[in-house]
Amino acid sequence: MRRCCNKRHQLNCPKTLSDCTGHSKNWGICTRVFVAGIDGYLGWPLTLHLTKRGHDVAGADLFLRRRWVEEMGSQSATPICSMKERQEAFREHFGRQLPFYEGDLREYTFVERILREFRPDAIVHLGECPSAPYSMIDVNHATFVQTNNITTTFNVLFAMRDISPDAHLIKLGTMGEYGTPDTDIPEGFFEVEFRGRRDRFPFPRQAGSWYHWSKVHGSNNVMFASKIWNLRATDIMQGVVFGTRVDEMGEDERLLTRFDFDQAFGTVVNRYCAQAAIGHPLTPFGRGHQKRGFLPLRDSVQCLALAVEHPPEKADYRVLNQFDEVYDITDLALKVQRVAGHLGLKVSLSNLENPRKESEEHYYKPDHQHLFDLGYVPSHDVETEIGLMIKDLMKYRNRIETKKNVLIPDVRWDGHRQKVKFLSPTVRGSPEN
Amino acid sequence: MRRCCNKRHQLNCPKTLSDCTGHSKNWGICTRVFVAGIDGYLGWPLTLHLTKRGHDVAGADLFLRRRWVEEMGSQSATPICSMKERQEAFREHFGRQLPFYEGDLREYTFVERILREFRPDAIVHLGECPSAPYSMIDVNHATFVQTNNITTTFNVLFAMRDISPDAHLIKLGTMGEYGTPDTDIPEGFFEVEFRGRRDRFPFPRQAGSWYHWSKVHGSNNVMFASKIWNLRATDIMQGVVFGTRVDEMGEDERLLTRFDFDQAFGTVVNRYCAQAAIGHPLTPFGRGHQKRGFLPLRDSVQCLALAVEHPPEKADYRVLNQFDEVYDITDLALKVQRVAGHLGLKVSLSNLENPRKESEEHYYKPDHQHLFDLGYVPSHDVETEIGLMIKDLMKYRNRIETKKNVLIPDVRWDGHRQKVKFLSPTVRGSPEN
Repeated sequence: MRRCCNKRHQLNCPKTLSDCTGHSKNWGICTRVFVAGIDGYLGWPLTLHLTKRGHDVAGADLFLRRRWVEEMGSQSATPICSMKERQEAFREHFGRQLPFYEGDLREYTFVERILREFRPDAIVHLGECPSAPYSMIDVNHATFVQTNNITTTFNVLFAMRDISPDAHLIKLGTMGEYGTPDTDIPEGFFEVEFRGRRDRFPFPRQAGSWYHWSKVHGSNNVMFASKIWNLRATDIMQGVVFGTRVDEMGEDERLLTRFDFDQAFGTVVNRYCAQAAIGHPLTPFGRGHQKRGFLPLRDSVQCLALAVEHPPEKADYRVLNQFDEVYDITDLALKVQRVAGHLGLKVSLSNLENPRKESEEHYYKPDHQHLFDLGYVPSHDVETEIGLMIKDLMKYRNRIETKKNVLIPDVRWDGHRQKVKFLSPTVRGSPEN
Repeated sequence: MRRCCNKRHQLNCPKTLSDCTGHSKNWGICTRVFVAGIDGYLGWPLTLHLTKRGHDVAGADLFLRRRWVEEMGSQSATPICSMKERQEAFREHFGRQLPFYEGDLREYTFVERILREFRPDAIVHLGECPSAPYSMIDVNHATFVQTNNITTTFNVLFAMRDISPDAHLIKLGTMGEYGTPDTDIPEGFFEVEFRGRRDRFPFPRQAGSWYHWSKVHGSNNVMFASKIWNLRATDIMQGVVFGTRVDEMGEDERLLTRFDFDQAFGTVVNRYCAQAAIGHPLTPFGRGHQKRGFLPLRDSVQCLALAVEHPPEKADYRVLNQFDEVYDITDLALKVQRVAGHLGLKVSLSNLENPRKESEEHYYKPDHQHLFDLGYVPSHDVETEIGLMIKDLMKYRNRIETKKNVLIPDVRWDGHRQKVKFLSPTVRGSPEN
């Protein structure tokens, strides 16, 4: 953004200089964006969206997400292409190359090389393992998730310090860092009085899995790096994302992003929609009144693009709570049930024993004003999105059906690994019993 | 402690059953204590102290601290023995064996084997890298310190969960986790009001180095493990430790613990005393009005023993702020100067450019009541301790003199590595100029 229309940019950019300078605030200004973790659920649609908005994107991946989902005995419901095919489809649609670096972000020299070659203005760091249940499997998985996530973030931070000190880091945290306190949740920081003195503090984090704690560790590290090295950083406390698509995918199946429905990588609405598509009961955990912030995939990429296009000042560590609305997970199940009904799919709700240790009824009121201030406009209501999802997933019901065993979790927070049971008589038979 | 006088204990314990049951609350009750990091500055004297108090101790180490200090171009001012010689001296003094496991606490199977064989009632986890400057050297050191400290703690936590779920973990954190907020600092948790609602929160951490953040990450992980697995844990927010000895060392040089004076492993009072012993100026960093909590080595082992002897309930995560008094680092330099003067050593003060990024004048009022409630009685005043230290160090001035180059730091928080300069004209010439 800061390098808009400079020499190097003009060489790569299909727009002419006059196009590039005459645009409105949020359009047509090119940023060179490096997407770490480009092959993931968010990384790929974000790449399409940023490119459509005129930015130059390069990405890196080691394809670990594909392996993790395989390890969970599952597969993406959507058939996803190899990166080579994705690059080919990208070239056809956007008329330009997509630079891709295959390698391990845990290797400092790999990250360093990318920053030296690509010289990004912004780095969206999605190169972390994003699963709570995966991190709770055993000591090896817990250690892997935390050390992987810390190491990749360190490599990005140090490479920025030494090579791209003016670049903007967009780091993915999670709303789960805050837990479910009995007060409102601000965006990152709050001012409080303690024994007659006031100070502004990071809002205390009370995460609920080794994965969520890895995100807290990462947020803390990014906050400190910004402070000592004057880096500009946006830490995204993202809610639970759901959805199968962004507009930029159009009808080209090669542009689809992955869609997971297993216990570890399938988030709750995605799991419900996959269940609905094959007529499996929808399965809230426990009493089912956990509240979380949610947003559709298309809004996630919209918000990330807004963050990219509105970088903070140098040395500024900015926290954005990124979600559209707060929902109770049973209310969401009822919405999925209703929408599925309209599509002719009759599905029941059947609560499962909760494999997690978490509050199942609680106060929940997180702020989320900053992104609206930057221009976030929610795409459409949640039921419309759910309808689009179920229609998409019905095309791939065979791919879900063959792996439906993964819809019932067995990774428990107490350390045992055993399939959880249905809590009440199911209206329709569960495929597990 | 909970296994006092059981069959297994009687086999190992020199005391008879009647001796063992008739004692006062804090004495004569045997606890099997596993000290992870037994070869370190705290680990070794803690082992002597716990053994003197009647506990059964076993330890583990990989001798990394010896290598790190060597990497910093330094050595312990005190000549320290090999573990074999330490075990021999231990046997002579205490009439019993000291079980020692040489190995890497980052290997889960190693930790698991120790817990299966030794079946500890308490685990004092000192097996972490304890240096802020060491963690600030470069990306490799930052990553090493955080991943090492997270991994060793994970291994201890998971092994406790699976093998010793009733044992008591005593984990070393640091007062540095809290940073220097503009309010009082409670012991771990505080209750605050935010927008009209109240909740009890972990006190926000604002650490000042990658090392200090590794301790925050560890505290967060231990807090969460206690919650989900009902482990009993004490998290020690320890102040800056100084001192050359504990009473149990007597006059046997083989029982000495290490004493570091380099920029990375020498804490501030220890550095001052080493400087005083060779007539080097005492070197506060920056304006020199940083305030910290301090305690002598002998009080550190006293407090750790109190924690061992008063375990919390199952599922209780207890935080103890462990220090005797808060001092300004210039006041401490003046104390060292005065005590050195009484011993005939004339030393000047000369402020150094601060290699760190930290507040040099600030509010500082941390609580530290819990340990006093458990029975902590400070040994004696700080000047007496400093006098004993300087006398001890004068025996080893040659060992300090040959490495005096390490007294001036070069690891800077901004990422450059370059010796810092003296800020004001020195009263006595600095050996660097």
